[in-house]
Parts: sequence; structure tokens; C-alpha cells
Amino acid sequence: MKLSQLESNIKNKKSFLCLGLDTDIDKIPKHLLHNSDPVFEFNKVLIDELNKKIVAVKLNTAFYESRGAAGWMSMEKTIGYLNRYYPNLFTIADAKRGDIGNTSKMYAKAFFENLNFDSITLSPYMGMDTVSEFLAYDEKYPILLALTSNQGSNDFQMPNNLYETVITKSMNIKGAKKIMFVVGATKSDFLKHIRKIIPDNFILIPGVGAQGADIVEVVNSSTDLENKKILINVSRSIIYAGNDENFVVEASKKADELNNSIKFK
Amino acid sequence: MKLSQLESNIKNKKSFLCLGLDTDIDKIPKHLLHNSDPVFEFNKVLIDELNKKIVAVKLNTAFYESRGAAGWMSMEKTIGYLNRYYPNLFTIADAKRGDIGNTSKMYAKAFFENLNFDSITLSPYMGMDTVSEFLAYDEKYPILLALTSNQGSNDFQMPNNLYETVITKSMNIKGAKKIMFVVGATKSDFLKHIRKIIPDNFILIPGVGAQGADIVEVVNSSTDLENKKILINVSRSIIYAGNDENFVVEASKKADELNNSIKFK
Repeated sequence: MKLSQLESNIKNKKSFLCLGLDTDIDKIPKHLLHNSDPVFEFNKVLIDELNKKIVAVKLNTAFYESRGAAGWMSMEKTIGYLNRYYPNLFTIADAKRGDIGNTSKMYAKAFFENLNFDSITLSPYMGMDTVSEFLAYDEKYPILLALTSNQGSNDFQMPNNLYETVITKSMNIKGAKKIMFVVGATKSDFLKHIRKIIPDNFILIPGVGAQGADIVEVVNSSTDLENKKILINVSRSIIYAGNDENFVVEASKKADELNNSIKFK
Repeated sequence: MKLSQLESNIKNKKSFLCLGLDTDIDKIPKHLLHNSDPVFEFNKVLIDELNKKIVAVKLNTAFYESRGAAGWMSMEKTIGYLNRYYPNLFTIADAKRGDIGNTSKMYAKAFFENLNFDSITLSPYMGMDTVSEFLAYDEKYPILLALTSNQGSNDFQMPNNLYETVITKSMNIKGAKKIMFVVGATKSDFLKHIRKIIPDNFILIPGVGAQGADIVEVVNSSTDLENKKILINVSRSIIYAGNDENFVVEASKKADELNNSIKFK
């Protein structure tokens, strides 16, 4: 997807919402379990219902890998369904991969060619050669972890402002305009600061909802009501809003509630 | 596997070798391609031939994921074969995952429960809460990236000695004895320094062979001829030593050559 397309989708739908499909087979409504692939069925129903209220969909690969080859097939089916029926939804493989050379190339092949995701989250620890293979693809985007929402972000990301070094070093490489960054919703003070360094790059903001951050606070602390370059990921508090035949109605209400809480300009 | 078992295997086999199965279907001998699962067949033949000359096997997950669900099945079959016929070989999922909370739990389930690997490589960027879920398992080992062999290690790992902070912080958590660390073979000067900080933890050393480091230099620069707590991973220069019906003979020769180059005490 072109970034200009994503921006205009945000504007038209008046939504920054990314639907996080952290789909756990032990948590989905029981009536879905008689389907041949309950996880895909759950995802499909949510996507069909919510597609007009969201601009992106993020699949957390851990939840699929935890079910082995069968789980990988649920992921293949879900991204295949998105690519076929909803090409206007920006897709994110939340894989947090991070490797180099020929290994990076294999991950890029897995997620950008075979599965055809628009983007993938990457861990920058191994350095900038982690990113280059992913920048080689047109209209595909690496999303680098910068400052995450968890307690452990104090261990390595905060000391010596490592998160800032990650951002500034990334901005010096060829194709940097295409790099997106993860900044946790619990770090809204830092978000303002980061926006000064990267006024034009997309920022993916997880940590809203189950992890406790207030979506309104997050958006108000960014300049993004204007420039439309954030994606706010919400997973559990939408997808598990309900837990019976009505789950999709509850999920839809929750998405409306989140969209309406933002004073969209 | 108990660590004491791994140490005695190293001593008895007089080998630090970890066989890196970075198996690329485009690089394996052509005569294997008529098998129903050529990647598994390639891995199986190598394991059967080399099991007495190696102490560990490392599967690089990227190479399996690049073939989707079919690739995941090749990985399942390979680790299943290892667990069934060679329980004395220490197994490593070179997955470089790194996430937190319920996502970490899912990765631990995928690699420690379902696939039953002995260990997994992890990227520490998100902090120490990345590691805890993996330490919850008995006789299973997280292997944290510390200092890697690539050029990009100069970007974030070297400045402010981040790699050292990763090691020292890790050593302060409960169960630290079980944590292993990745230190690239191209960093032999640093290896001596790191050994002073962690005299007793296992170190996984990749970057030997195709990446250019001299195995003898590596081992001589460590104190590990004595304490037997390193694993030296070699991938391409063993598994692709030959490229026809004789590939396994060539691979076996290469493994002997590597083992013999070390003055084992």
C-alpha cells in the first residue's frame, strides 16, 4: 500500500484504529469451536464487521506460532482473506523479528512475499543491517521498535536514550521515509519529543486498552490529529469485548467508542 | 536437557560443534528434491551422519518460515526426529524472538512445549521481561543476544557497552545461571572480557566459517578449553560443503576438520 493511501484512509474513515488480532483459541467464544478453523473464523467475522471502522489490522505472530503449522495456516488464511477482500486495510505482521544478511532476506520473503503483509515489526538490537532487506521492497514497510510500553523499556531503551539513537540512526539510511516506529501508548510524554525528531514518519502505538493507557491522552499528546500519521493498535479490549454469540456486536461498539473519543479534525 | 549433561557430552565427544540447519531448499543437492519433504530429508541425513561429531543442533527459523506452513512442518519433523532419536543433542531454536507478557508466553509455548526445543535465542531490546517466561521452564534455556558478529553490532550493541549492560542486568535476575548468551566469533577480543563477567554461563558462538572467523582463534581466546561451556555454531560451511550425492561425506569431513583444529584438553 502507498503511504498516501493509508493517510487518506485515516482521513476518510476518521479512524487511527489498528485491529490487533492476538487471537487465542482458548479465549474465543465457544460457539466458534466447531468450525474447521475457529481462529480464522473469529478473525474473519471481526474483519467483516469492523473493516469500515479501522484502517489497519495487526497479526501477532506468536499467537499463531503457538499452534504450530495449523496456527501458521490460520495466519495464512487471515492475511489471504485481508488481501483478497480488504486490500485497503494496511496489514502488519507483529513478528518482532531481527536478524541479518541471508536470514533477514528469508524473513522478508516469508512476510512480504509469501504472506504479502504491508509491514512487519522488527527489533533493532542487531543494528541497521537488520532493516535493509525489508526496505528493498516497494510499498512495504519495516516498523522498528523504538520505545515500548512495558516495564522492561527501562532496562535498555531508556538508559543513554537508546530509543532516540535507534530513531536518529534509522533516519540516516536510504529509504528512511518508509520506516515506521513503535512507541508505546504509556509513553505519551516521550511521544511529543519523538514527534519533533520524526515529524513525518508513521508511528504505531500499542499499549492502549488492556495495557492501560488512555487513548485520548495519547492522541492529544501527538500532533497527529493534524498529520494523520499514527496507527493506534487495540487488541484484547476490542476482540474480547464480548464472549458469546454477540461478541462481534460488542467489538464493534468498542471500536466506535474508541473512534468517537478522538476529536478528529 | 540438564546443563551437566551438555557439559559431559562436550567432554566425551571432544566437540563444541553446533550444527546450524539453515536449510534453504534452493541450495540443497538436487537429488533430494523428489522426496516429499526435501528439507526434512536433507536435515535427517545430516543428523544421522554427524550426530557423534556434534553436541548441538540449531534450526534457524527464518529458513522454515520462508516456506510458510509447509516450512513449519519441516521444522516440526526435524525437531521431532531429534527429540525421538537423538535426545542427547542439545537443540536450539534460532528464532531471535523478543516480546513481553502474554506474547512471550505464546512463544515459549510454541518453542518449549509444542516443538520441545531445549533453548531459544532471544533479542533483549524490550528488556528483561522478555526473558522471564522462558526461565519458567525446567531444563530449558533462553539464549540472549549480547554481541553479534555483524557490522551492525557497532550501531547499538557497542556504544555505551550496551552488550555488557545486557549481560550484567541478566545476571541479576532469578534463574540467571540458566541464561546463555550469543557472542559472535568475529569478536574474540571481547569474548575474553565477557568471560570475566560470566565465567560459568554457556556462550553460543556463531559466525564461524561463512562469516569468516577462525575457529581456532575463537577457542584459544576463551577459557573454554577448560570449562567446556561454549557451543560453536557452524552452518553453511558444513551443510553445503558438498552439493551432490556425496554431500554428507563432505559435511562429515568438514566437521572432523573443525573438531580436530581444536586442541581439546
